[in-house]
Amino acid sequence: MMNQISQENIQVGEIANGLPLSIPVYRIKGNGNGPKVYIQANMHGAEVQGNAVIYQLLETLKQQTLASDITLVPYANPIGCNQKSGEFTLGRFDPITGTNWNRMYHNHTALVNEFVAQHSESSLDEIKSAFRALLLEQTQTMLDAPAYSIDTGKRIALNLQRLAHEADIVLDLHTGPISAKHLYCPEYAKTSASYFDIPHVLLIPNAFGGALDEASFCPWWSLSEAFKQQGRDIPVLVEAFTVELGSQEKIDLAEAKHDANSILSYLTYKNALIDSAFKPLSMVRYACMLDDCIAYYAPMGGMVEYVAPLGGHIEAGDTIAHILRMERYLSEHPLQALTFDQNAITILHFASASVNQGTELYKFFTNYFEL
Amino acid sequence: MMNQISQENIQVGEIANGLPLSIPVYRIKGNGNGPKVYIQANMHGAEVQGNAVIYQLLETLKQQTLASDITLVPYANPIGCNQKSGEFTLGRFDPITGTNWNRMYHNHTALVNEFVAQHSESSLDEIKSAFRALLLEQTQTMLDAPAYSIDTGKRIALNLQRLAHEADIVLDLHTGPISAKHLYCPEYAKTSASYFDIPHVLLIPNAFGGALDEASFCPWWSLSEAFKQQGRDIPVLVEAFTVELGSQEKIDLAEAKHDANSILSYLTYKNALIDSAFKPLSMVRYACMLDDCIAYYAPMGGMVEYVAPLGGHIEAGDTIAHILRMERYLSEHPLQALTFDQNAITILHFASASVNQGTELYKFFTNYFEL
Amino acid sequence: MMNQISQENIQVGEIANGLPLSIPVYRIKGNGNGPKVYIQANMHGAEVQGNAVIYQLLETLKQQTLASDITLVPYANPIGCNQKSGEFTLGRFDPITGTNWNRMYHNHTALVNEFVAQHSESSLDEIKSAFRALLLEQTQTMLDAPAYSIDTGKRIALNLQRLAHEADIVLDLHTGPISAKHLYCPEYAKTSASYFDIPHVLLIPNAFGGALDEASFCPWWSLSEAFKQQGRDIPVLVEAFTVELGSQEKIDLAEAKHDANSILSYLTYKNALIDSAFKPLSMVRYACMLDDCIAYYAPMGGMVEYVAPLGGHIEAGDTIAHILRMERYLSEHPLQALTFDQNAITILHFASASVNQGTELYKFFTNYFEL
Amino acid sequence: MMNQISQENIQVGEIANGLPLSIPVYRIKGNGNGPKVYIQANMHGAEVQGNAVIYQLLETLKQQTLASDITLVPYANPIGCNQKSGEFTLGRFDPITGTNWNRMYHNHTALVNEFVAQHSESSLDEIKSAFRALLLEQTQTMLDAPAYSIDTGKRIALNLQRLAHEADIVLDLHTGPISAKHLYCPEYAKTSASYFDIPHVLLIPNAFGGALDEASFCPWWSLSEAFKQQGRDIPVLVEAFTVELGSQEKIDLAEAKHDANSILSYLTYKNALIDSAFKPLSMVRYACMLDDCIAYYAPMGGMVEYVAPLGGHIEAGDTIAHILRMERYLSEHPLQALTFDQNAITILHFASASVNQGTELYKFFTNYFEL
Repeated sequence: MMNQISQENIQVGEIANGLPLSIPVYRIKGNGNGPKVYIQANMHGAEVQGNAVIYQLLETLKQQTLASDITLVPYANPIGCNQKSGEFTLGRFDPITGTNWNRMYHNHTALVNEFVAQHSESSLDEIKSAFRALLLEQTQTMLDAPAYSIDTGKRIALNLQRLAHEADIVLDLHTGPISAKHLYCPEYAKTSASYFDIPHVLLIPNAFGGALDEASFCPWWSLSEAFKQQGRDIPVLVEAFTVELGSQEKIDLAEAKHDANSILSYLTYKNALIDSAFKPLSMVRYACMLDDCIAYYAPMGGMVEYVAPLGGHIEAGDTIAHILRMERYLSEHPLQALTFDQNAITILHFASASVNQGTELYKFFTNYFEL
Repeated sequence: MMNQISQENIQVGEIANGLPLSIPVYRIKGNGNGPKVYIQANMHGAEVQGNAVIYQLLETLKQQTLASDITLVPYANPIGCNQKSGEFTLGRFDPITGTNWNRMYHNHTALVNEFVAQHSESSLDEIKSAFRALLLEQTQTMLDAPAYSIDTGKRIALNLQRLAHEADIVLDLHTGPISAKHLYCPEYAKTSASYFDIPHVLLIPNAFGGALDEASFCPWWSLSEAFKQQGRDIPVLVEAFTVELGSQEKIDLAEAKHDANSILSYLTYKNALIDSAFKPLSMVRYACMLDDCIAYYAPMGGMVEYVAPLGGHIEAGDTIAHILRMERYLSEHPLQALTFDQNAITILHFASASVNQGTELYKFFTNYFEL
Repeated sequence: MMNQISQENIQVGEIANGLPLSIPVYRIKGNGNGPKVYIQANMHGAEVQGNAVIYQLLETLKQQTLASDITLVPYANPIGCNQKSGEFTLGRFDPITGTNWNRMYHNHTALVNEFVAQHSESSLDEIKSAFRALLLEQTQTMLDAPAYSIDTGKRIALNLQRLAHEADIVLDLHTGPISAKHLYCPEYAKTSASYFDIPHVLLIPNAFGGALDEASFCPWWSLSEAFKQQGRDIPVLVEAFTVELGSQEKIDLAEAKHDANSILSYLTYKNALIDSAFKPLSMVRYACMLDDCIAYYAPMGGMVEYVAPLGGHIEAGDTIAHILRMERYLSEHPLQALTFDQNAITILHFASASVNQGTELYKFFTNYFEL
Repeated sequence: MMNQISQENIQVGEIANGLPLSIPVYRIKGNGNGPKVYIQANMHGAEVQGNAVIYQLLETLKQQTLASDITLVPYANPIGCNQKSGEFTLGRFDPITGTNWNRMYHNHTALVNEFVAQHSESSLDEIKSAFRALLLEQTQTMLDAPAYSIDTGKRIALNLQRLAHEADIVLDLHTGPISAKHLYCPEYAKTSASYFDIPHVLLIPNAFGGALDEASFCPWWSLSEAFKQQGRDIPVLVEAFTVELGSQEKIDLAEAKHDANSILSYLTYKNALIDSAFKPLSMVRYACMLDDCIAYYAPMGGMVEYVAPLGGHIEAGDTIAHILRMERYLSEHPLQALTFDQNAITILHFASASVNQGTELYKFFTNYFEL
């Protein structure tokens, strides 16, 4: 017997001709015993592979026995997803304002102190359900504010966040520009990182930068810390990850199947699936702290040949790129070799061969270690 | 006898074909007795009128007797200034990253505490020169970091900030989209606001949002506050303003002459000019606190007729715009009147007639008062 | 009794998330005795005022007694209409390919020769209905070709053209960038131009450039000429105009009312309305031939103050703009006056103050004459 | 002894801040006995690999014995080359007008008839030098027209065309979006195509579409045909090719070395090099006529997995792509397989995974044959 999948379309905005912007929300129900799961994809318009992963997840999940209710949202951003400029999708930021679509979520951490004061005697279950209800209510209150007080990106983000706060597990599927697979993992959830088939893990602190994973876990993490200050130990009750699936502007259905299996392995570990055989691949996983993930900006303008292999380990002083500068072929060396001064793992590089001085060329893991 | 104007071109970046990005810096020297003045324009690419104001300032200043050294920088942002997308200039944010060019300056406020500890016994003059030297040195240190650690916008901003920190008076010339003239004025400099011929003044607190005015005054304001906590009263030694000249994408030389005179009136008040006859026009000036300057986002998508007059005072409930939605001419009222629920002064509106739900339609002063 | 308005939504494409692109088509029926009328607006995304004119037309037409069936299509281009890049609407060309949306219609003139050969003995009525049927059938055939053979803009254009070919009168509502009102009128329909309240008329020959007016009248004009070569005089049976309503990025409902009345005056003249009181305003109308409408490109890069008044008559040598070039304030005259070497009427100018050398600054009527 | 390379910078425009746009022109002189050669790259901003090929050509040519004067122009389009929109280079068309930068060259074919009338008795050498002089003079005359009559793209194109008309051999280095190597070759120069190491050759007729290769050879081809109509056989005296090097947004120095060698093989065949060992690789080369090169537009909107291998031979009915449409996962099959109905060679595909209905997905050679 196949699981039923239901679809709901949620309106998250309106465009200039007055038509609604909506996103499709797919739901599969489990037996109610597992953690609630929320998975979304394509908040950045060019990062499309997550839709293919959701496709593969749906294809698989309808045949699994589920403990968890699972909500899956492809095409999370109907503006970014359809925004072209030239051949490519210009979906990283609002084309009107420049605001990064993934920096618009709301941080509810300010609710923690009063909540803890009121719930010092509550049971863990009471805490969990009351804090969840509070997050949902506050998100809804923001959406219910006068329409003139909410900007475009905030309205999309709050609608998604409302769905995410219902879940115990939140996965936001992104990609890098040209990128190795990597995982943004909150430090407290390090153990879970080993259940994904992702060799590079970025451990992030309890700091809010506007993204969905942070909006999902920061309040719960702060809640745990606030109780700790009261002398009471409660776990962080929600896990949230940003899963970087590889490169943008690419659909690869076979790779999506692998990534779906990787997510199912993690969900099996979290008891979302019953009698599931999904388990992590054996691989060396490297991690680094967020502060050790270094952006390397182009030290000069020019045209770039990227030579550091993605996922590869480079040594300090290795050539990572050549920069060709043909304007001054005669007056200076037209081909410059770039190096980085630390041992590092190459995580991603810029998507274009043409860079200004100061364009982010690479991201590197430094001071990395085996997980 | 005319004052000499000197020109220096400062390199602030390189583009993809390897050519340098430079900005022209014009300097006029005074007799050394006045406050140093720094004026820049066009950090946002479409906000060009400041260049015309600098033109008019140069034309006038070369005939004035000057106490102050004055530095003037048109075309402060050589990327934004030349970035087209369609007919208009897409110069508000880095086209690659979306980062607002005017949110990239560095906040040196963190230097204050150690500085105050070291200068508790210093004279006001010593404090002024030592803190200025510190700001300049720290800005230079950031520019001297490995080239790979500085992104495109930061490099432009730091180069400009280095020039601005040399001055006692900093004016950053901007425009709104379609806008009445208004002035961003730090609360402590309220008196100065009356010397500009600008009827609308936004009083801003000591909070850093990344703009040049803030980068210029926040450290000095914090310095003053830190000394006050030590029981010593020193004034805020630097004044910095963002001057919003009106609408973007427009050069109006006659209006630029008025705005140059307005600036010269302020500079006369600050003793930058000797025997100057420039003085402020008699006008009612309205001010509001930053928190009372309200962004009004489009409550629905559609095509907008703006009807609230710029600089006009509206009453709560007045119609401020009509939104035409022709997709549903038969199924709902195709013409919606928008209202705002507070008494307000209309400061600016969006530059286009087509808006998504959530696009910033208007900015209003509320709870305004006569300055 | 009010006329019934019906709405149909026509699908003209699909976007990247798979959702349909549709346009709303409004229809009012007359008594069948008048010429069929087709009016569309907003093929170029920023040229929104035509939607307001259609709104005013619908509001008026539902109260008129109509001889004609009238079809009105606002938001003719659902991609262009919603395409933002910065604050403005980037709707002039396909953002992927650069193709001007209004150069994608099909020229059916090649059908004329065979048709004339077959209909040398037909009555005028037979000719009219058979040629119309042929145009419609051929347009439908193109739309029925394999989906892989039709590009995005062509599919939109052919869908609109199919509607337009049903009509005897076609009005395509556009605007200039910053523009005086003007009318593109085929030379044979010069008399009709005097029924619009538009003071500037551009007389265009039987040459196809890809626009809807041309696609609508060229085949019928060529049909008339082909019969003339056979020694038979038939009139051009279709009239089509591009109506340039003024400036882009602007909704002005009062002005839209005037322009609706202007169109109703023309339709009254064409017997589309019964007992209608709409008649043209008394005004001097100037015309020029298409070849005498001169594009004036910026002879240098810089920032422009436009000083030639729209609709104004300039003399050869008058200053039409100032160009400010602040990079070389000291080394050359920073303010250049531009002149045009002919007597002319200023029809439109560029929408931005920043121009490259070679940007179209102005369009002028030269060798103009009273209509 | 190394050949001297000289550099000249040619001004081709000015940008909004008044600074000149220039392109670097590199020249190497031969002994004067070989055909003059002109090679340019990067007319489309994202098509950067040609700059790397010119780098490798310069590195090699300075060590060769040359019969020919060779002119090499990297960065042919200083606007397109530096135009960013998001991470990618938006350099295919003028961002203001949408005009394809490679459709702006001038067709001098209209000069042919009068020239032939005047030179019916001239020797072949006289014809060659007089017609070349005429092309150069007419191009210069266009550039000398009033500055206000030349638009931005035309000015760049005419400046390049002036350089190209000096040459007997013209190579315009482009790339496709994601592409196999292919060569645009005029039908009369088919033999030359076998000297390039390029397996796919597109044979093009004597028709002008605005590109540099056509602007270079069409007048000479028409000259040959006009003399033929007079009963005199003269060869087409100029060869011009567009060389499609592979994919855009990519610098690959090793591949550039191969492509430089391929060009040197052709130049060796044309006696531009003395004692040169460069010769073509042995490979099967496939050709098709321009009309048989089929654009395949997306028959629906969605997210695309490209599965037809570049350069691969597909059979009618093979799956060439999957289109994922997750909006309607439940209501229709979310994954559609696309097929093409002819045997074909896959030459290129679109650069993004997100497509509207009607976006060009693929280009195929059909009715291809071995060269």
